[in-house]
Amino acid sequence: MKISVKKQILNENDLIARKNRKFFDSCGTTAFNIMASPGAGKTSFILAVRTFLPKTKRIGVMEGDVASRIDTDRILSYGIPAVQINTGGNCHLDALMVKKALSQLSIRRLDILFIENVGNLICPANVNLGTHDNIVIASVPEGDDKPYKYPGMFKTADLVVLNKIDLIEVFKFNLEYFTHGIRMVNPNVKLLAASCTGKRGIREVSDWIVNQSL
Amino acid sequence: MKISVKKQILNENDLIARKNRKFFDSCGTTAFNIMASPGAGKTSFILAVRTFLPKTKRIGVMEGDVASRIDTDRILSYGIPAVQINTGGNCHLDALMVKKALSQLSIRRLDILFIENVGNLICPANVNLGTHDNIVIASVPEGDDKPYKYPGMFKTADLVVLNKIDLIEVFKFNLEYFTHGIRMVNPNVKLLAASCTGKRGIREVSDWIVNQSL
Repeated sequence: MKISVKKQILNENDLIARKNRKFFDSCGTTAFNIMASPGAGKTSFILAVRTFLPKTKRIGVMEGDVASRIDTDRILSYGIPAVQINTGGNCHLDALMVKKALSQLSIRRLDILFIENVGNLICPANVNLGTHDNIVIASVPEGDDKPYKYPGMFKTADLVVLNKIDLIEVFKFNLEYFTHGIRMVNPNVKLLAASCTGKRGIREVSDWIVNQSL
Repeated sequence: MKISVKKQILNENDLIARKNRKFFDSCGTTAFNIMASPGAGKTSFILAVRTFLPKTKRIGVMEGDVASRIDTDRILSYGIPAVQINTGGNCHLDALMVKKALSQLSIRRLDILFIENVGNLICPANVNLGTHDNIVIASVPEGDDKPYKYPGMFKTADLVVLNKIDLIEVFKFNLEYFTHGIRMVNPNVKLLAASCTGKRGIREVSDWIVNQSL
């Protein structure tokens, strides 16, 4: 019985996700689902990428958090349209939350929508939001073993960004070991290193995003 | 219907958790549920604390991970009894997983059991394992806003350890803001700063653990 209930929930989510995708496509908006551990640098990533995107690209942001609107206020302070989704206790965004929040953003005026998921390296990987691509951000202080411990998240990625790369020596981070772990679960995923606060490697990330755009 | 199914699962978990607790008590073993984001330093915490505990205290470890046995192998390499729990896709340990793993450790010979939960700052907070105390580890690179974004986890803590404290300047971490966030959700929780790899602040943590012990 438990299984059938779960399946029903998943199907309902996938159905709404499909509608979200159709809506994005009809608006000419490319949507990215940004996933990472808490504090890996999702908001800094969005702010850094924005400075390298062509000026003609209009971006908007959805911020997913269990509580608070800290990240939305930060994004808004840069003049970027943003809307906060607070999940209460929920550990990930779902397609319905995104659908409801869409009415609060003028999506038709946006070329790119960044959806910052709840900070969590497990649950968000399994929930389709209707976005076009999944961007997973890992960060050096978390350690080089994350792909081995959280394979599901890295498997679902279209782009993996290794953030806080300037601290690679401080944390004795083994890039080869990390890369091997990524390749094991997702052989063809694009992998880029960056420092979102130092703006290092962000041009390559920005170019990848533009290439994926509709 | 969904609610009743969920309730049933929770009650079943709590029932097993109660049995786990009784078993710990009958063995004279104090059990700690260690929770944190991925890469905050849970395993390093256990290894650091161990060096400051009285030699008479015998410790054992349960390692919770979605996949891999990296942490268990690391703990075993120090001669500490350890058992791995792989949750598959599950984002947290539950009381039944702990109960099953208990048969693989000689609990009666242990004074302290550290249960390292899956790296996740949300879901593990709501699942009782039968342990005596919750230790939540935050780390400086994650940022000072975590108590505001993940209040449930910090609310459930008996001890909060702020790890990687040696990097407080590098990350411009605002300790006052962090502490204020903790106090908002959990006014009386014990809060200690530490560097688990540098062994800074670990004596205070070790003293707290001994004080909590049966």
